[in-house]
Amino acid sequence: MTAAIRERLRGAPLPQGVAPFAGVTANAPHLATRETKYGRKLCNSLEDAIRASGLKNGMTISFHHAFREGDKTINHVVDTLAAMGFRDLTLAPSSLLSCNAPLIEHIKSGVIRRIYTSGMRGKLAEAISNGLMEEPINVHSHGGRVHLIDRGELTLDVAFLAVATADAFGNANAVSGRSRCGSLGYAMVDAARAKTVVLLAEELVPYPNAPASIRQDQVDLVVKVDQIGDPSKISVGAARITSNPRELLIARLAADVMEHAGYFEDGFSLQTGTGGSATATARFIEHRMMKKGIKAAFALGGITGSIVDLHKKGLIGRILDTQSFDAVAAQSLADNPEHWEISTNTYANLTSKGACSDRVDMVILSALEIDLNFNVNVITGSDGVMRGASGGHSDVAAGANLPIVVGPLIRSRIPTVVERCTTVVTPGETIGVLVTDHGIAVNPNRPDVSERLKAAGLPVTSIEDLYARAVALTGKPQPVEFLDRVVGLIRYRDGSVIDVVRQVK
Amino acid sequence: MTAAIRERLRGAPLPQGVAPFAGVTANAPHLATRETKYGRKLCNSLEDAIRASGLKNGMTISFHHAFREGDKTINHVVDTLAAMGFRDLTLAPSSLLSCNAPLIEHIKSGVIRRIYTSGMRGKLAEAISNGLMEEPINVHSHGGRVHLIDRGELTLDVAFLAVATADAFGNANAVSGRSRCGSLGYAMVDAARAKTVVLLAEELVPYPNAPASIRQDQVDLVVKVDQIGDPSKISVGAARITSNPRELLIARLAADVMEHAGYFEDGFSLQTGTGGSATATARFIEHRMMKKGIKAAFALGGITGSIVDLHKKGLIGRILDTQSFDAVAAQSLADNPEHWEISTNTYANLTSKGACSDRVDMVILSALEIDLNFNVNVITGSDGVMRGASGGHSDVAAGANLPIVVGPLIRSRIPTVVERCTTVVTPGETIGVLVTDHGIAVNPNRPDVSERLKAAGLPVTSIEDLYARAVALTGKPQPVEFLDRVVGLIRYRDGSVIDVVRQVK
Repeated sequence: MTAAIRERLRGAPLPQGVAPFAGVTANAPHLATRETKYGRKLCNSLEDAIRASGLKNGMTISFHHAFREGDKTINHVVDTLAAMGFRDLTLAPSSLLSCNAPLIEHIKSGVIRRIYTSGMRGKLAEAISNGLMEEPINVHSHGGRVHLIDRGELTLDVAFLAVATADAFGNANAVSGRSRCGSLGYAMVDAARAKTVVLLAEELVPYPNAPASIRQDQVDLVVKVDQIGDPSKISVGAARITSNPRELLIARLAADVMEHAGYFEDGFSLQTGTGGSATATARFIEHRMMKKGIKAAFALGGITGSIVDLHKKGLIGRILDTQSFDAVAAQSLADNPEHWEISTNTYANLTSKGACSDRVDMVILSALEIDLNFNVNVITGSDGVMRGASGGHSDVAAGANLPIVVGPLIRSRIPTVVERCTTVVTPGETIGVLVTDHGIAVNPNRPDVSERLKAAGLPVTSIEDLYARAVALTGKPQPVEFLDRVVGLIRYRDGSVIDVVRQVK
Repeated sequence: MTAAIRERLRGAPLPQGVAPFAGVTANAPHLATRETKYGRKLCNSLEDAIRASGLKNGMTISFHHAFREGDKTINHVVDTLAAMGFRDLTLAPSSLLSCNAPLIEHIKSGVIRRIYTSGMRGKLAEAISNGLMEEPINVHSHGGRVHLIDRGELTLDVAFLAVATADAFGNANAVSGRSRCGSLGYAMVDAARAKTVVLLAEELVPYPNAPASIRQDQVDLVVKVDQIGDPSKISVGAARITSNPRELLIARLAADVMEHAGYFEDGFSLQTGTGGSATATARFIEHRMMKKGIKAAFALGGITGSIVDLHKKGLIGRILDTQSFDAVAAQSLADNPEHWEISTNTYANLTSKGACSDRVDMVILSALEIDLNFNVNVITGSDGVMRGASGGHSDVAAGANLPIVVGPLIRSRIPTVVERCTTVVTPGETIGVLVTDHGIAVNPNRPDVSERLKAAGLPVTSIEDLYARAVALTGKPQPVEFLDRVVGLIRYRDGSVIDVVRQVK
């Protein structure tokens, strides 16, 4: 062929860096045989996949946390990396939970040196709050994580992405097979951005697998594993359904706020988030919508069965799902063409070309603490120890037309409304309303909302008044004592540092 | 806030380049008001959109050609750019057709300086073949175009993408609304890669529009236009349905080859492409599949009503659609969850992480010329003038297990089988079988296939014999006379130059 090509190209001015044709497989060796075409991604073991991934000491590994407390992938992969002798890795999952306590040993032994995460809970969070790591961890929001990747601070060298089913070419989802976590919204980000994408698939299925939440042209390697996660544990903790009467009271009041704050019109949109009161609010909004004869255009975010229920009753047009918080949501994503899987880039990254979070009218948010400036803490407890996650909190608070924080005034004798948050995750300027079991406070920057709620006869007071009530009931809390040493940086969604977490004394 | 932040961050070691929080809108000015959040992408006119796009002289503009001869977007935008005084642009549509003849004036006047395209037809192709442009055009395959973009040779500064419906945030498709071309497989590539993405939407619909073939997080600007294209003209030319008896004879013979070449097993896969015989083959394969009781796993590529018909009869599992070649295909894409829209990156880019073209068993391909080495020309006529397109031809030929070229031995006294192609687009080493109305030739590199076809009693001969018959019927054609000057570079899918087109004398 070469002589023929030379003759055809004689005297032709080839552009800089452009070569003459050198054969079909010259730049595509995988085309040589059917075996290399079809089988080139499939690995026999996780160890083989890791070796093929090119992972080296000092690199960054990423994961999704869609199984939440049921995750069986992060610990398994890091255990394997440790056994293979890897060191000095940066761990960059979309989040960490109590189930990740075994990582403590891998931090101690130097396998993991740095962590980027939306949050952490349990023993791992306690250990890090007490100074386990040499470098502070970076706590980001869901949208902020994508921003950090796209702006080059966080480079995902190898993404290990758990999927319920995949074909050998990498088309994968988590709405079919045994272990269905539903939306792969977090994983879709990493699949599109990581240098090397390794799928850990619980089941291998014939090509082409559908739907392709993760596509073949995003995947380098595929390995079958025994179990990726336990979907029954997704709704443990933050995503639980409440039957607590006080939480139900708050949820009802939050629904009242949604009804009267000025956004309850046909075609409105909502996000109800997680946490007992937040999830319950979805249920209380139902008869208000029917009474007024209106329908929401869409619901966004972490999706629960309550939202799916409203959709099935015709009260919500579309569901935009970045994480399915229970089996009902996962099943709906599988069955229902109006229930869409969206990446966290589409969901909430402020430097994406368009985040859904900017199009939401009302969002229900939770809080560990909220202070007199409406700043919200969702990461540290009143003892200064990390026990939560940034999540989409600051993202949707910044984007929504009316962010509504819900929470009891006092939890186990610890006030939620405080003079000054232990840690600021979401700036108060973005919060519209606080709903507690002792009344409602409206941010002074939203006098329009305050007037409407008062006109509707809702128990509106000031945040100073709620704070005074809390202090009257519990006494003024002793300030937590911290060392100077910083154990965590709280990254705002634009990458800036909005607060730090210091080592507890 | 700043003083409070300063106090919270005191002494904290901020990473290089990371700033303290400076307010919610500091890095997201669009969040300031509801109007800027919702309306920031919507432009009042195409001129406004062009101004907002940041387009400058010398930059590269891109388009999709899914409306083929019915396109109303490319000429309209370039006319507008010319009227606005732009110059020295590189035009990089996925392809050009006869309808683009008005571009001749814009090339003459210096608005367009360089062209990358899969092909060209009609007056524009004639003019360029006759030396209209100073720089040679680059002719790429569909997959090769993505490769050129991803490797940095072709930078899409502004993509002008025609869509049937869009919401004001940029969620768009072409399966709803009036002007439905179906799959936006070409446009999906540009939406994911262009620096600035401008949607030209024939209809604006409420947020969120579904399905989002192009997503809000890929789109910068949206402008409403009167008409994007005429879908009734998609199947004009290459994509027509044949009733020509000779083409039907060839199609029947091609179906015989598919049946007996060794790949006709349950779960096989196929692509039937366009061109009269190619499209008709889909119809002839039907009763052979029913007789054998087998079903194809998937059909790939440019999709026609014939493929949809096989799918509806349960004979094809899934349809992977990078371009819908008729209204039946477009409607099926809208209605049918097993009919998927895939980008040309997923379809056929050899440097994507996985191209569907590598997973196809048999593909039917057309040819203007095929030579004694099985090299195929789909771009120049026997007079040396460009009149075709590279398309997915070389992509799927390289990937498929058995590429089958179909064509009449002689067209209007011009032989298809030639000693040496006027222009090589697809290298002969990738072609398995040639099917003509005078018999079948099998590439000597596929003795396995030759044996099976002979055993099945099919009229197998050699390509030399077919060539001899052609010469006996038409006489040996006079070689075309060319000047030395190169008017086109034929880029193979890996970016290399496989041939050049020289100016006709």
